[in-house]
Amino acid sequence: MREKVYIGLDIGGTNLKASPISSGGEVLGRVHRPSPGTTGAGGTGGADEGYTEIRTTLSALVESAAGGKPIAGIGIGCAGVLSGDRRAILDSPNLRGFEGFPLRAFLEETFGVPTLLENDANAVALGEGWRGAGTGARTLVVVTLGTGVGTGFILDGEVWRGGAGMGSEGGHTTIDPQGPPCRCGNLGCLEAFVGAYGILRRFREAGQASGLAPGPDLGVQEIADAARMGDALAADVLRDTGRFLGVGFANFANLFNPKKIVVTGGISRAGDALLDPARDEMKRRAFPAVTESLEVLPGRLGDDAGPLGAVYPLIGEGD
Amino acid sequence: MREKVYIGLDIGGTNLKASPISSGGEVLGRVHRPSPGTTGAGGTGGADEGYTEIRTTLSALVESAAGGKPIAGIGIGCAGVLSGDRRAILDSPNLRGFEGFPLRAFLEETFGVPTLLENDANAVALGEGWRGAGTGARTLVVVTLGTGVGTGFILDGEVWRGGAGMGSEGGHTTIDPQGPPCRCGNLGCLEAFVGAYGILRRFREAGQASGLAPGPDLGVQEIADAARMGDALAADVLRDTGRFLGVGFANFANLFNPKKIVVTGGISRAGDALLDPARDEMKRRAFPAVTESLEVLPGRLGDDAGPLGAVYPLIGEGD
Repeated sequence: MREKVYIGLDIGGTNLKASPISSGGEVLGRVHRPSPGTTGAGGTGGADEGYTEIRTTLSALVESAAGGKPIAGIGIGCAGVLSGDRRAILDSPNLRGFEGFPLRAFLEETFGVPTLLENDANAVALGEGWRGAGTGARTLVVVTLGTGVGTGFILDGEVWRGGAGMGSEGGHTTIDPQGPPCRCGNLGCLEAFVGAYGILRRFREAGQASGLAPGPDLGVQEIADAARMGDALAADVLRDTGRFLGVGFANFANLFNPKKIVVTGGISRAGDALLDPARDEMKRRAFPAVTESLEVLPGRLGDDAGPLGAVYPLIGEGD
Repeated sequence: MREKVYIGLDIGGTNLKASPISSGGEVLGRVHRPSPGTTGAGGTGGADEGYTEIRTTLSALVESAAGGKPIAGIGIGCAGVLSGDRRAILDSPNLRGFEGFPLRAFLEETFGVPTLLENDANAVALGEGWRGAGTGARTLVVVTLGTGVGTGFILDGEVWRGGAGMGSEGGHTTIDPQGPPCRCGNLGCLEAFVGAYGILRRFREAGQASGLAPGPDLGVQEIADAARMGDALAADVLRDTGRFLGVGFANFANLFNPKKIVVTGGISRAGDALLDPARDEMKRRAFPAVTESLEVLPGRLGDDAGPLGAVYPLIGEGD
């Protein structure tokens, strides 16, 4: 019985990833496959038709991750709006092929084990709270910086999923009513400032203003690297990114009074070059009584946070 | 036994108010006394010394509200930061004399009944959720507009008090990093735009720009009245106030996915002249899936919301 593994699944638009995880929370490996394209989604109907490629790919991936060991349970993290009972993906721009697919029912029937489905930002928050930088914080905010900006709020030990289960979108809170356009259609969302496209936009604008013309294929990681190597323009953009992030942190601090704010994802690897300006800005804006006991930390688990968080409730409840 | 009443106490810097409330949630009356000044606070020490005027005033007020009927319990709402166990007021700028006073212990010993202490914005939210405009909403945001802007968040049936009990200060979330100064020291808080002093500041500025010079003793109620009477300047300021409020609503909507947002306090009496622009702005900014099932409503209980909410948990648990 000790040999059983949990499978943490990460369903993304580009790749499906799976990690076998011990009941003690050790990540024992990582496998991945290309995501079934929308072309392969098959039928549009109910639970019993279509989705052939999804079924085949998921089965093979889970079996590959388990590596012959018995499976104790499967936890799934994915982007998008989940159904109210969290059994399927209702709406996800990058996962059109999965919409309506009875994800949990399929895995439960195929492998005969309990499954859970969680929003990816919440899964990351649960993972960092369990085994990462968020341990010991019953109230915890985890911000995942990528193309988009995901937020997971653990409130007094419980992940907050929104009153009707629509999730909790801290990346889409307005921090400047006349700010730049956000992918969601709003102006001035936190994401429009600190999501990858917001950072790149500001870098391009600053470059043009100073007579430079950064290449079109520049990524946020290159900006962070350039800042570390002494590039003044990149350092300015990184520092400003930290400040905007700090405005968001101040809002989360005054609303949630958390013990920790943990930052993960691409640009967060810049570390204190990003987080120090964020901490300063947060302290300038939020209540001192709230910030004096609040730590802002980089995540510790990298890509393992999501799979760990996705299986955590299964292990917590079932072991 | 049917004759017992609950006492809802509202502890403010100007007045202490008390209402006898039936176990069915009917407010049976209202009495008030001037708040004991800081001059009357007496000693600085522990539970057994000083605070003579507070003790005398509170006892008389509660007895007056009860009107000879037996008391079943006392619920207290007050502004400020409460102690972690919610037994005393830790920090409240307008209630300095009460700081450190063992409020609940005193009332429990004097009247021999259970007591509760709640942040005033949370009490208003509990009241509107129980008997007012928020009924039926397990996740509910209540915004109280006054000199300051209080917020109460009921999340899946539970009032959210912050991870370390510091409260949840939605009025002090930044909606414009370069916005006007807020009383809390920050720039661009929601309160700096839609709190009374923010509204008056914009009215004065607009008046000066148009060659008018509003009187210095103008209040927000007069602005609302003038807007209703056709004053274009006042109507503009009221509409802009609604729009800023809508930015805050959009943030609360995307974070909390509530079923209702209820608005109470002074300027909210302007009704749809304030709330329609707020609804429009919210819908422009928040996710359609979140706003399509979200109602924005004026409060229904006025000054009774706080006392009702303060006793609600006593009645819910004890009847």
